[in-house]
Amino acid sequence: MKGLAQAGMEPRDHSVPARIRPRIDEVESSLIREVASRGMDSDDVLALWFGEGNVPTPKFIVDAAKRALDQGHVFYTDNQGITPLRQALAGYISGLYGVPMDIERISVTASGMSAITVAMQLLVEPGDNVVITGPVWPNCIETVRIAGADPRVVQIELGEDGWSLDLDRLFDSVDENTRAFFINSPNNPTGWVMPEEQQREVLDFCRGRGIWLIADEVYDRLVYQGRHAPSFHTLADPDDPVIIVNSFSKSWSMTGWRMGWMVTPARLGLTIGKLIEYNFSCVATFIQHAGIVAVEEGEPFVAELVERYRRGRDVVYQRLAGIDRVRMALPEAAFYAFFAVDGMADSTDFAIRLLEEKRVGLAPGAAFGPGGEGHLRLCFAATEATLSESLGRIAEFIER
Amino acid sequence: MKGLAQAGMEPRDHSVPARIRPRIDEVESSLIREVASRGMDSDDVLALWFGEGNVPTPKFIVDAAKRALDQGHVFYTDNQGITPLRQALAGYISGLYGVPMDIERISVTASGMSAITVAMQLLVEPGDNVVITGPVWPNCIETVRIAGADPRVVQIELGEDGWSLDLDRLFDSVDENTRAFFINSPNNPTGWVMPEEQQREVLDFCRGRGIWLIADEVYDRLVYQGRHAPSFHTLADPDDPVIIVNSFSKSWSMTGWRMGWMVTPARLGLTIGKLIEYNFSCVATFIQHAGIVAVEEGEPFVAELVERYRRGRDVVYQRLAGIDRVRMALPEAAFYAFFAVDGMADSTDFAIRLLEEKRVGLAPGAAFGPGGEGHLRLCFAATEATLSESLGRIAEFIER
Repeated sequence: MKGLAQAGMEPRDHSVPARIRPRIDEVESSLIREVASRGMDSDDVLALWFGEGNVPTPKFIVDAAKRALDQGHVFYTDNQGITPLRQALAGYISGLYGVPMDIERISVTASGMSAITVAMQLLVEPGDNVVITGPVWPNCIETVRIAGADPRVVQIELGEDGWSLDLDRLFDSVDENTRAFFINSPNNPTGWVMPEEQQREVLDFCRGRGIWLIADEVYDRLVYQGRHAPSFHTLADPDDPVIIVNSFSKSWSMTGWRMGWMVTPARLGLTIGKLIEYNFSCVATFIQHAGIVAVEEGEPFVAELVERYRRGRDVVYQRLAGIDRVRMALPEAAFYAFFAVDGMADSTDFAIRLLEEKRVGLAPGAAFGPGGEGHLRLCFAATEATLSESLGRIAEFIER
Repeated sequence: MKGLAQAGMEPRDHSVPARIRPRIDEVESSLIREVASRGMDSDDVLALWFGEGNVPTPKFIVDAAKRALDQGHVFYTDNQGITPLRQALAGYISGLYGVPMDIERISVTASGMSAITVAMQLLVEPGDNVVITGPVWPNCIETVRIAGADPRVVQIELGEDGWSLDLDRLFDSVDENTRAFFINSPNNPTGWVMPEEQQREVLDFCRGRGIWLIADEVYDRLVYQGRHAPSFHTLADPDDPVIIVNSFSKSWSMTGWRMGWMVTPARLGLTIGKLIEYNFSCVATFIQHAGIVAVEEGEPFVAELVERYRRGRDVVYQRLAGIDRVRMALPEAAFYAFFAVDGMADSTDFAIRLLEEKRVGLAPGAAFGPGGEGHLRLCFAATEATLSESLGRIAEFIER
C-alpha cells in the first residue's frame, strides 16, 4: 500500500469502485424538472411549470433584510431561531387561528422543505412507513425515501363535487410500522382543502394509535374564501403528536429566501434544536430579521397577492372548462390548475410535446405520484396576458 | 373511532403516546452549548467558547447582497447553485490549488454542515460505519448517527512535536461496513493539519478499498504558513471517491450567512442535486450573489484576517505556555487553542466552574469526543484586550 501511495500517479486499474447508498438510486428526480430542463433556458417559452409566483418579494421585507445587514446581524443564532422572530411567529399564529402559541413550540428552518426533512429524521427510519395523501408534490415522497422509510400514497379523487379523500382508505392503509401521516392541505397540485371534520377525525386517529401527523400547511393563506384554510392549529392540543410545517415562500413571495418554520409539542424543542444544529445550524441571521417584518406587517400584501391569484385562477378555470376533453375542479386554494385531459395516457410525453410544439411549459401530472397521471398542472401565478396566450395555445393543442 | 372524533373534546386518557426514532435520543446535544447556556446571556462573561470570529462580514460582501436584493434576486435557483457562483468557485479553487476544476463537480449548500449532511445521506445507512479522526467538532459525529450509521473515532495524539495521527490505527479501524473516512484538516479543535504524505496514503487506501473520503477543509485558509493548508484538491483525480466540503463561514467571516459548498466527482452531480432539492432546494439567491464577490474579491480580506488571528494565537500560546499545568502545541491552523490541563479529570465541570468563578467561557474538551477529555478549547478570534484579560483569569484559576 505504501509503495503505491508514494508513487502517486500509477494507473488505477486495481481500484475498487466506491458505492453510494443503494437506496439513493431509487430516489427519483422530479419529472417537473425533466420537462422543464428542455425549455428553461428558452426565452420564447411561456413557463407555468414551477410552483412559484411571479410577484417579487415586497420592498418592506427587502428593506428589513438590508437594514439587518447594515446592523451587523451576520453571526450565528440559536438553532431554533432568534427569539424576536419566534415571538413574531407565535403572535402571527395565535392572531390568525385564535389559539395560544408558546414560542418553545416554534423552530425556524431553512425552508418548509427543510422542516419536513427534520421531521422525517426525527420520526422514521428503515422499516417504518409514512402514509401520504396524494397526488402531492414529489418532495414529500422522496424525503421519506431518503430517511430510509417507505412512502404509502393514498389518493384523493376527483368527483362531481371536486377532490375528496376517503378517510376509511386512509386509515386502512396504516399498519404497525406506520409512524406518521403526511397531509398537505391546501394541496399542491390539486388545490384540495381537507375539511375541518376530516382533520378532526385524523387527529383523533393519531391520538388513539400513537401516530404522528405531519401537516404541510404552506398554502394556508392562499385560499379563495376566508383568511386561512382549516388548520390543525385550531384543533390540536399543544402536546398532540402533530408537527405543522409552514414557509415564508408562498404567503410573502419569498421563495428565494429559503425560510420556513415548524410547530411541534414543546417537549421536542431541544431535540429539534439538535437536529437543526446538525443539518444547517440556523437560518441566515439577517433573513430571520426580515421574517419578523413579513409576519408583523405583511397582511395587506397577503390580501393583495390572493386577489391577484384569484384573477388568474378565474381566467384559467373559465378557459379550461370550455375545452371538451378537460375536467377539473375550481381550485379552492393554492395557485395551481390541476386538470385531467381525457385520452391522455402519458402526461410527461404530452407535456414535452406541448412544450416543443406550442412553447408552453406545464408540469406533467405523473410528477405528483401515481394518482397524478392523466393530469397536467398549470401554475396560474402569472400575468393575465401570459395566462391568456398560454391557454389559447393549450386549447389548440388539445382540440386539434 | 368516529364517535370519539365527533365529540372532539373528550379526556385523553386512552391515547397512545407517539414515539420518536429511538436512535434520535442517542444523538447528543453539544457540551459546548451545555456550558455556554449558563452564561450566554450575561454581559460580564468573556466568551471564547464558540467557533466564530469577532470580525463582522466585510462591507464589500454585504453590499453585494444588498445589490442582489435590489436587483430582485429573490426567486428559486438551480439546486446546485447559480452558474456564476459555481464558475467563481471553480476559478477560486483552481487558482488557489493549481488544479483544473469543472463546475459540474461543485454544489452550493446551506453551510458546510449541510454539505456534510448531504454527504451522509448519499453514502451511509444503518449497518454502515464512518471512521473519523478525533478530537473533532461534535457535529461530524452526530450527523453520522442521524443517518443511522455508526461513527468510529480514531484519535490523533499530542506528542513532543505536536498533534499527529497514526495511519496504521486509522486503517486498522476499517472493516467491511466502513463506507467513508471523515477527516477534518485543518482540525477543529486542535489546529492539527494532516501532512500531504499522509493525505496521499489515505487517498490511495480509499482508491484500493472502495471507501469514500469526506474531507472537511473549512479551515483551509486559516493557516499560519503559506496561503492554504495541504488539500485533497491537489492530490485527488476528478473521479476519485472524494467529497471535499468547504464553507464561506470562516475564510470570509460569514458564519451567519449559512453557505458552503461541496466538490464531488462529476458523475454524482445529478444525485447531489436531487438530495439538495429534498433537503433545502437551494441556497438563498441573493446570498449566492454575495458569494461570487467573496471568492473573487476576498483575498486581501482573508490575508488580513489571518494576520489578526495570528496575533491572537501568539498572545494565547505565550500566556498558556507559561502555566505549569498546561500543555499545548502551537496551532498551525484554525483559531483555537486546545490545551491539556494536568490533573483536570472533568473538563465540563472545570469549564462550568471557570465560568461561574472567573466569568470566562471556554468549551470543554469532552465536547470533542472521548479523546478531548482533559482539554479545554479557547477560540482566539477575539480582541487582544479580551484575550489578555481572559488569560489572566484562566491562569489564576488553574494556578491557585
